[in-house]
Amino acid sequence: MGISQNGDLPLLSIHGFKPLDLDDLREQVHQTMDFIMDYYKKVESFPVLPSVQPGYLRHLLPATPPAEPTTFDAILCDLHRAILPGLTHWASPNFFAYFPATLSSAALAGDLLASAFNPVAFTWLSSPAATELESLVLDWLAHLLRLPSCFLSSSASAATRGGGVLHNTTSEAMLCTLVAARDAALRRSGGFAAAISRLVAYGSDQTHSTFFKACRIAGFDPANVRSVPTRSESDFSLEPARLRAAMAADAAAGLVPAYVCATVGTTSSTAVDPVGPISEVAAEFGAWVHVDAAYAGSACVCPEFRQYLDGVERANSVSFSPHKWLLTCLDCTCLWVRDTRLLTGPLGTDPEYLKNGPSESGSVVDLKDLQVGVGRRFRSLKLWMVIRTYGVANLQAHIRSDVEMARRFEGMVRSDRRFEVVVPRRFALVCFRLMPRGGMVEAQADKENRRLLEMINASGRAYITHTVVGRMYVLRFAVGSTLTEERHVASAWELIKKKADELLGVEVSPVPNI
Amino acid sequence: MGISQNGDLPLLSIHGFKPLDLDDLREQVHQTMDFIMDYYKKVESFPVLPSVQPGYLRHLLPATPPAEPTTFDAILCDLHRAILPGLTHWASPNFFAYFPATLSSAALAGDLLASAFNPVAFTWLSSPAATELESLVLDWLAHLLRLPSCFLSSSASAATRGGGVLHNTTSEAMLCTLVAARDAALRRSGGFAAAISRLVAYGSDQTHSTFFKACRIAGFDPANVRSVPTRSESDFSLEPARLRAAMAADAAAGLVPAYVCATVGTTSSTAVDPVGPISEVAAEFGAWVHVDAAYAGSACVCPEFRQYLDGVERANSVSFSPHKWLLTCLDCTCLWVRDTRLLTGPLGTDPEYLKNGPSESGSVVDLKDLQVGVGRRFRSLKLWMVIRTYGVANLQAHIRSDVEMARRFEGMVRSDRRFEVVVPRRFALVCFRLMPRGGMVEAQADKENRRLLEMINASGRAYITHTVVGRMYVLRFAVGSTLTEERHVASAWELIKKKADELLGVEVSPVPNI
Repeated sequence: MGISQNGDLPLLSIHGFKPLDLDDLREQVHQTMDFIMDYYKKVESFPVLPSVQPGYLRHLLPATPPAEPTTFDAILCDLHRAILPGLTHWASPNFFAYFPATLSSAALAGDLLASAFNPVAFTWLSSPAATELESLVLDWLAHLLRLPSCFLSSSASAATRGGGVLHNTTSEAMLCTLVAARDAALRRSGGFAAAISRLVAYGSDQTHSTFFKACRIAGFDPANVRSVPTRSESDFSLEPARLRAAMAADAAAGLVPAYVCATVGTTSSTAVDPVGPISEVAAEFGAWVHVDAAYAGSACVCPEFRQYLDGVERANSVSFSPHKWLLTCLDCTCLWVRDTRLLTGPLGTDPEYLKNGPSESGSVVDLKDLQVGVGRRFRSLKLWMVIRTYGVANLQAHIRSDVEMARRFEGMVRSDRRFEVVVPRRFALVCFRLMPRGGMVEAQADKENRRLLEMINASGRAYITHTVVGRMYVLRFAVGSTLTEERHVASAWELIKKKADELLGVEVSPVPNI
Repeated sequence: MGISQNGDLPLLSIHGFKPLDLDDLREQVHQTMDFIMDYYKKVESFPVLPSVQPGYLRHLLPATPPAEPTTFDAILCDLHRAILPGLTHWASPNFFAYFPATLSSAALAGDLLASAFNPVAFTWLSSPAATELESLVLDWLAHLLRLPSCFLSSSASAATRGGGVLHNTTSEAMLCTLVAARDAALRRSGGFAAAISRLVAYGSDQTHSTFFKACRIAGFDPANVRSVPTRSESDFSLEPARLRAAMAADAAAGLVPAYVCATVGTTSSTAVDPVGPISEVAAEFGAWVHVDAAYAGSACVCPEFRQYLDGVERANSVSFSPHKWLLTCLDCTCLWVRDTRLLTGPLGTDPEYLKNGPSESGSVVDLKDLQVGVGRRFRSLKLWMVIRTYGVANLQAHIRSDVEMARRFEGMVRSDRRFEVVVPRRFALVCFRLMPRGGMVEAQADKENRRLLEMINASGRAYITHTVVGRMYVLRFAVGSTLTEERHVASAWELIKKKADELLGVEVSPVPNI
């Protein structure tokens, strides 16, 4: 390399820094893969929930960034020394907390490719393949879930403009549809100043907290966001009659019902709101219906679970998160809407620096106009690779295996008369508790179950979380972490029984190390 | 594996599907890495902007998902056949469009690890290491940018509650701070119903379109979002006097100035709004000031560019995107706020199923309360690994090298009297155009430059985008794609000159293949 035209020295001879040197790349990924393989081999033996104290990391890593490079070996050492001890091991087969965040080798490979290509598909032109693969894969998943054709972009015409988009979380899907519904309601109610304070959004007391937060973000008056009470008699689902009563009261008071969130598989107990009847009620008031199937949507790839989406043909939008239960790792939420124009209205932008022929022709979708941000990862790649690599049959087997493991766990709980299953199990979550013993008030039962949970989690050999349904403190056992096999479920049950023995003061005979 | 307790068959014998089989994982990542290495070796030779037509992918891939598994070889074949021809090659060294989306081997390795661990750090407890590394790395970057200590979580106390969070895009950072500012303004103005229609947000006509969109999402009346005009005499920066005039007029009309967005490095032309003086004006009206340094923030790791953030100590929040110019691949935006409590107020949630001891103790940060969603990737890992692997000195060298390449390109443009540099170059973006020739009106010059851009991009040998500043159609040449070296910049200039020759009808002598 010689001196350039204008006499300047070649830059590489000035510093020589190549952040994407191919030898470095191969070596670093190779070392990283060794680390990951080793991690997966050992993760079963790690305490699922770490025992570190708040602030622990500041004692292990320097407070200021290093001036000079560090060897990759030293970085991986620090991962072992400082990061792993503070990780909650979501990938552990003994992880039964929250809902699982599942992954797969195909998703890891797909996400690596997305990082390597690193296109920013805000407009079609800025990466046609990324935009078109996203539309295609969302149509594939819509087929899998047997969504009505009004949600497919391949069925879109001048009259119907359905389609899908990948968001990072359900919250973003809710927020974008709330904004669409809000602006539609404002248009028919006299405009912003006249109506913004009168718009109302509805969920149940089981709807995810992020719905209420999304309403706040979207500028709904917090006083106008309803949480309709549910009952154990209805399995904690949103009852259409109660919804109608709430909407009618608001309408009578001069308010404008604008949005209803129906949940298929609530976070507490996987309750299912009846989508069809709820949509009928909402239609009476002209309100938007969004179906949040974040967790249970994945199960609907199996025909036997599809019934829970019945009525979705009447909804305005539906979302679910393959990063939860469809093996795609974070983050990956699918949103379908019946009319994309209602989203691109409030969310569309057209700055000069992004103007281009295809966008102006109207023949393409610019996905930035269906989401909060402008930038976006090539998320469809991992989803496409998961579906291709495994095929529908394996995805169904994956769901069925988790559900079957949960069914067996439920059987174990039912076989021990100290415990009860609190709500019917529908998918792969079992909600159970120690029953109140003779003369015990509920508050005492809650305290005992809370203590049991603490003892289980402190053991490090399983991680389970809790909820409160029907005023009862309940343990949630969510089967589905990718590496979980039957033996882990069985071990967890042995652990739970042993801790119950300890808690209830039963003389404990030696238990084999599980 | 035998028959289980209750007589059920072991599940693995039922289907045997293991989505995270370690042999598959090693093999698939190995094949993927071969693909990626091959891609990087060849990417320089690919047309940067693909020539596919809208809908091209539907002709190449099946319309419905496959029932059965596909071999990984076949999937990689499809990547070659169907995806690569439709990719806009952001990783190409000949990519000079938009702003670069940079990456590095360390970021790829870090992101792979994040996918493999796949923790969902909504609360501290759900993954202490992910939460604590995020706080630490944001403090590191704050040190690097010499942000005042009020933005550091390590300096937080009962009185000051500064801190940072990683978002996926600048849009999310703007949205969250808009919601915080909105609710603060509502509190001091009589509450939601009384004031929501009176809140006003301010940017300039150069502020990114996503700001105006974020205002709409956050429920600001579109009629109350101001785009203050800029002038070429002030290098298209937001002038404090004009801002004051706009705010005063609104205040006099009974409106409530709530938020000002100051940009350091606008998208069109890398204009820099004067953060200090703007903050002074905003303070007169009690409005929040957010500093959007999405692109140019990365440059501020070099002391010689830090001046552009002067005054940030008076702002309420500041964000920049390492996924743009700091080698971390998508998506990764840093947001710092002076008082995290103003975010956790409107964005905080506390559902029963996430309640836990550390959160209740108040001794930890739950990052879900500083963002739109609940779920979140372990994004800090790649950022930490980039800083560790390269060290501050190399990050500075990386920025300086890009800026130097842009400076040299600017010199080339200036040396050709057919062209002019339209706005002063500050970072690594050069805005230039063919000057209007004798008697040509501006509209003709615009048309000529548009045609030149089309010819350059149609060649496939470089990708450049445009903007309009000061009513002029201008070509944007953004240096900084990770693989770009001096020779690519020189080749791009030769290409531009050649296309200008063709366009202007100069007799073309044979040009060596570049």
